[in-house]
Amino acid sequence: MNITIKELQEKQSLTSLSPQEIRELICELCHHFYNLGWASGTGGGISVRDENHIYMAPSAVQKERLKPADIFVLDLEGQILQESGRDLKLSQCAPLFMHAYKQRHAGAVLHSHSLNAVIATELFDKQFTISNLEMQKGLDGYGAFDTVNVPIIDNTAYECDLADSLGEAIRNNPKSYAVLVRNHGVYVWGKNWQQAKTHAECYDYLFAAAARRKQLGIAND
Amino acid sequence: MNITIKELQEKQSLTSLSPQEIRELICELCHHFYNLGWASGTGGGISVRDENHIYMAPSAVQKERLKPADIFVLDLEGQILQESGRDLKLSQCAPLFMHAYKQRHAGAVLHSHSLNAVIATELFDKQFTISNLEMQKGLDGYGAFDTVNVPIIDNTAYECDLADSLGEAIRNNPKSYAVLVRNHGVYVWGKNWQQAKTHAECYDYLFAAAARRKQLGIAND
Amino acid sequence: MNITIKELQEKQSLTSLSPQEIRELICELCHHFYNLGWASGTGGGISVRDENHIYMAPSAVQKERLKPADIFVLDLEGQILQESGRDLKLSQCAPLFMHAYKQRHAGAVLHSHSLNAVIATELFDKQFTISNLEMQKGLDGYGAFDTVNVPIIDNTAYECDLADSLGEAIRNNPKSYAVLVRNHGVYVWGKNWQQAKTHAECYDYLFAAAARRKQLGIAND
Amino acid sequence: MNITIKELQEKQSLTSLSPQEIRELICELCHHFYNLGWASGTGGGISVRDENHIYMAPSAVQKERLKPADIFVLDLEGQILQESGRDLKLSQCAPLFMHAYKQRHAGAVLHSHSLNAVIATELFDKQFTISNLEMQKGLDGYGAFDTVNVPIIDNTAYECDLADSLGEAIRNNPKSYAVLVRNHGVYVWGKNWQQAKTHAECYDYLFAAAARRKQLGIAND
Repeated sequence: MNITIKELQEKQSLTSLSPQEIRELICELCHHFYNLGWASGTGGGISVRDENHIYMAPSAVQKERLKPADIFVLDLEGQILQESGRDLKLSQCAPLFMHAYKQRHAGAVLHSHSLNAVIATELFDKQFTISNLEMQKGLDGYGAFDTVNVPIIDNTAYECDLADSLGEAIRNNPKSYAVLVRNHGVYVWGKNWQQAKTHAECYDYLFAAAARRKQLGIAND
Repeated sequence: MNITIKELQEKQSLTSLSPQEIRELICELCHHFYNLGWASGTGGGISVRDENHIYMAPSAVQKERLKPADIFVLDLEGQILQESGRDLKLSQCAPLFMHAYKQRHAGAVLHSHSLNAVIATELFDKQFTISNLEMQKGLDGYGAFDTVNVPIIDNTAYECDLADSLGEAIRNNPKSYAVLVRNHGVYVWGKNWQQAKTHAECYDYLFAAAARRKQLGIAND
Repeated sequence: MNITIKELQEKQSLTSLSPQEIRELICELCHHFYNLGWASGTGGGISVRDENHIYMAPSAVQKERLKPADIFVLDLEGQILQESGRDLKLSQCAPLFMHAYKQRHAGAVLHSHSLNAVIATELFDKQFTISNLEMQKGLDGYGAFDTVNVPIIDNTAYECDLADSLGEAIRNNPKSYAVLVRNHGVYVWGKNWQQAKTHAECYDYLFAAAARRKQLGIAND
Repeated sequence: MNITIKELQEKQSLTSLSPQEIRELICELCHHFYNLGWASGTGGGISVRDENHIYMAPSAVQKERLKPADIFVLDLEGQILQESGRDLKLSQCAPLFMHAYKQRHAGAVLHSHSLNAVIATELFDKQFTISNLEMQKGLDGYGAFDTVNVPIIDNTAYECDLADSLGEAIRNNPKSYAVLVRNHGVYVWGKNWQQAKTHAECYDYLFAAAARRKQLGIAND
């Protein structure tokens, strides 16, 4: 497998945690995201990869009560290597997460049902746009005076059917670390779990800021 | 007792927890619901059943401070088998909860005073309506493009007087897992406690979304 | 000392906790109220009494970091029996709390700087009014279809100068368990700490409901 | 070093914690500020000084996961005495914090990305103004009937470039304990960490109150 220097550097940003530590981290983060309102009603979640494996939560379980043994292990092509300990199904987000792993060499991918994200998709049409907020600097490569755009794709009846349009949105928006899904939520990634979480917190803050500006009659730029 | 295959399957979804574990679970969930704002001022609560018993919280106590010994035990007809350890009265919700147990073979029933639910009953007349939100998929059998309706019944001076109209609303709305009570709150159920909690989180999110859409001038469909 | 049967009954509702347990309870409740947003910036607090003593927090300290040894002990006339362990001053609320203790035989009195309370004093003039909310039933003696009024008094430069008008508002509103202070917050009491806390949660919910109704164009009745 | 009596008194308000206790305190406070929404996306933070040293968090790390060994130690001129244990950079806020330490003899300086602060900078032009709120009394020297002004400076692309205008704003507003930065957040200080935290909580409450007043059509005075 030939990799570029840039890819190698990105690889070096991956987690150095043991498989068990990654499982515990995913549970801890899911609990945290639940408290932030990103994972209520069994929605949302996070997937983390190391050099050779991708760790992913099961579908339709209470994310704040996830146990380390519940986590699936996949290879870098997305094939299941290890089932969840309980009789559970892999997250329907799996094909979507794979696009960020493959196209962006992400180290972690996160899915949130935050109402801030959903409202953002209802206030904007083809893409969410905001500018002039210091919090933008939490997005790798962005400055406080840049404009941040996040593509919005339409929702589909089955989450797996989102994969093509999400993959296309990722390809067409090389500067974005996120794709919004209308009336649904947002997918966010980063080169490792810390950056994915930081990106997700910044985007959520930007979505909330746009709605508060709208409510208060403040121009969104 | 003759039961259909569907009823049998629902039974199999019931909790396999011991009586003491169910008591502890109810306390833990009440604490959690208090933190979500669903049980302030001693309001709200959850009832869970196993094969032969229904466990229910007492009335007018701080739900976030409930102790396992405080829980009442009822038979499947709603007769008290075991009083609360302290000098407390059974929840006034008991006859209301029984409708969901009997008509829907629920495994758990929840009552919330969430302000999101109350505001929903003030924004809508005979029924709450929302559509096109991914979070709807957390309601068993619903898709992201369906329309979710929740009947709204009028409040009564005494909670026990709600039982008839709640029973009627359940009968007339076989697809709903919830009944809203105007200026009061919501009753939600599921085939087990996990599903009741998931349903309640999804409905609360939908109620909040409708209000935010209204505030921001976004169409509710 | 001659007491009426009603007063005796109220006495029997007082806490049976030991002095040390009351001190710990006050710290726990202050921590809790801080998390509810009622005691930020060292504001707010709660005072609890037993048969012969009144326990009160010091002034101008971080309420969420209060220690049992910080609590002052007063006699039933409001004279300090025991100073705080640290070099601290008694809460400036002391003369205000005493009105609820003396006029209403309260078992606990609470002061909150909740923004919901402050906004309520800015949406209404001489008194806050709301009706038709189930949460009203958390106020002793109120039904879901009653109207709840809370008198609003004007703020003064020094908290001690509030005592006279607060005392008068208590006398003139015998059905209220609370007095709002304009641009300041609210005083709430109950026959024991549980009821004071329940009353405070219910009032705060009612204040929040009135503001959300206003925001959403819903009539407040 | 000649110091005035006033400076000496201020010094006496400094923390008497050991270096290790200060490191632990900074981590605890950063965790707390994260929960308040002031430090999401690695933003925000607090710096504390004792007689001879200034303790400061590193840049671009998750503030809620800070460890005591991560903290930098500086001398009173802002020169680094001790690097962070990990390969981290000093907070870009360092030159800004130094202005409050030097010009105001602050004992602690705090930076928050609270959305309440950011919205305040978008609702006001050159300075934030509010009056007639009891919570103002949490700001040292202010009364409930005073007017509180907080200067607003424009944001810059690099945080270090803010230092000059922040220093100027501090000089020109001797009664303020805070400087707002447009579309960015707020810097707040106090004579010790307790007062800096109290000031920050009061300002955040005042910023939130101004926005809620605007939303509800209430005059801001």
